[in-house]
Amino acid sequence: MGKHLLKIVKIGGNIINDEGALFSFLKDFSELEGPKLLVHGGGRKATEISEAMGLTPKMIAGRRVTDEAALEVVTMVYAGLLNKKITAQLQKLNCNALGLSGADANCIVAHKRMASDVDYGFAGDVDVINSEFINVLLQNAVTPVFCAITHDKNGQLLNTNADTIASEIAIAMSNSYEVVLNYVFELKGVLENIEDENSVIQYINLKKYEQLIESGIISEGMVPKLHNCFNALKKGVQKVNIGDASLIKNTNNLFTTLSLK
Amino acid sequence: MGKHLLKIVKIGGNIINDEGALFSFLKDFSELEGPKLLVHGGGRKATEISEAMGLTPKMIAGRRVTDEAALEVVTMVYAGLLNKKITAQLQKLNCNALGLSGADANCIVAHKRMASDVDYGFAGDVDVINSEFINVLLQNAVTPVFCAITHDKNGQLLNTNADTIASEIAIAMSNSYEVVLNYVFELKGVLENIEDENSVIQYINLKKYEQLIESGIISEGMVPKLHNCFNALKKGVQKVNIGDASLIKNTNNLFTTLSLK
Repeated sequence: MGKHLLKIVKIGGNIINDEGALFSFLKDFSELEGPKLLVHGGGRKATEISEAMGLTPKMIAGRRVTDEAALEVVTMVYAGLLNKKITAQLQKLNCNALGLSGADANCIVAHKRMASDVDYGFAGDVDVINSEFINVLLQNAVTPVFCAITHDKNGQLLNTNADTIASEIAIAMSNSYEVVLNYVFELKGVLENIEDENSVIQYINLKKYEQLIESGIISEGMVPKLHNCFNALKKGVQKVNIGDASLIKNTNNLFTTLSLK
Repeated sequence: MGKHLLKIVKIGGNIINDEGALFSFLKDFSELEGPKLLVHGGGRKATEISEAMGLTPKMIAGRRVTDEAALEVVTMVYAGLLNKKITAQLQKLNCNALGLSGADANCIVAHKRMASDVDYGFAGDVDVINSEFINVLLQNAVTPVFCAITHDKNGQLLNTNADTIASEIAIAMSNSYEVVLNYVFELKGVLENIEDENSVIQYINLKKYEQLIESGIISEGMVPKLHNCFNALKKGVQKVNIGDASLIKNTNNLFTTLSLK
């Protein structure tokens, strides 16, 4: 007997920052049939709350450092405000959502990233996903909604990259499901020409990925994103799609599909 | 075959405000055997964050009004910061905690309190507890940790009294469990003489409760607290205890036990 299909969707700041876009996305998401799981990033709200509280974000080499005050803010905003707002909205849409951080039911254990050249503070890299409990939720027709907060099983909460959380969950769940991982972001897909929003590369396999990196067509923020995707594919995830919010409606629209071959 | 015992504990602000007291309580809680469930209030943190954000709490007749800005703050602080801090700490103590708001898996549906003389804003009164899902968690050896945020199943989060949440969950779970409900607060129990912290009334039945109200020994904040307790007892909860944090260790200490007869 074949495995059941599990759809995992990750949304980022561009949707979360726009209430209309968020609710429209959540409506589409709620209409997806079968087992599904949502991972959300943070968006501008954490910065707004930090500023309102008079906190100055610490940046080193262009990257945010999560000190203790910043960790409190992201825990409040990601695990509290955004996660519960999304969950309540999905409940309204009759999707039986359950909001989770990595600490809840020990779903995602991470470790604090070692300080090397840069000390990122309370930033966590994922070690273990509790796929057994996630499976209990799915089998009870519950839709897990993960924010980007994890824990180290030693009492410490950690701020973790939401793209990585999505790919690590996808990998762990691929033992018991055929997993399709969808990254919803601000572009229609991976672009051949960054100036042309419609120059979407529709299929990228491993060979093409290496060519695109070599030629410099994939650069900057897309490099870690695609690294996450191919890591997931190499470790058992069936398919990865990247595109804008229209991608999950599964109509005949433009987006990028990644696969190994 | 008799029902299994379920221990429900509600903690309030006095423990949450003191990190040492909170961790000590959580250690005791984690050592309770068998199915258990925690409900926590808010404490001073919501006021601190509000003040840091320059918000002025709205009070009418001595009671807090939850306007939209206040709802954002309590959602952040109760469902985010406090709930995840408690959950991560319990995970460290090998208690498989899962933090929940009422929106999560539709656990607690409430309705916005009607504006009468006073409009309390986004304050919710409990309608339905999803005891079936709470039971799924308990049967999977998961310990639910509820904050005092509910939803109306129509997309609206609501601020709800934590004492009431604890008693409503206790009532709903008493269909399938023998439920003992423990209210942990700042006093050793219900006091005969408010000036003497050791004048604990150890047993109160319904008849004695009515006498205590009539004589004015129970007054002010204790009236709604005890009303919640006797409401729970009348609707199937086995026993209610009220006392300070030492009560859950179940040693031979001083606290108040309430029962119908």
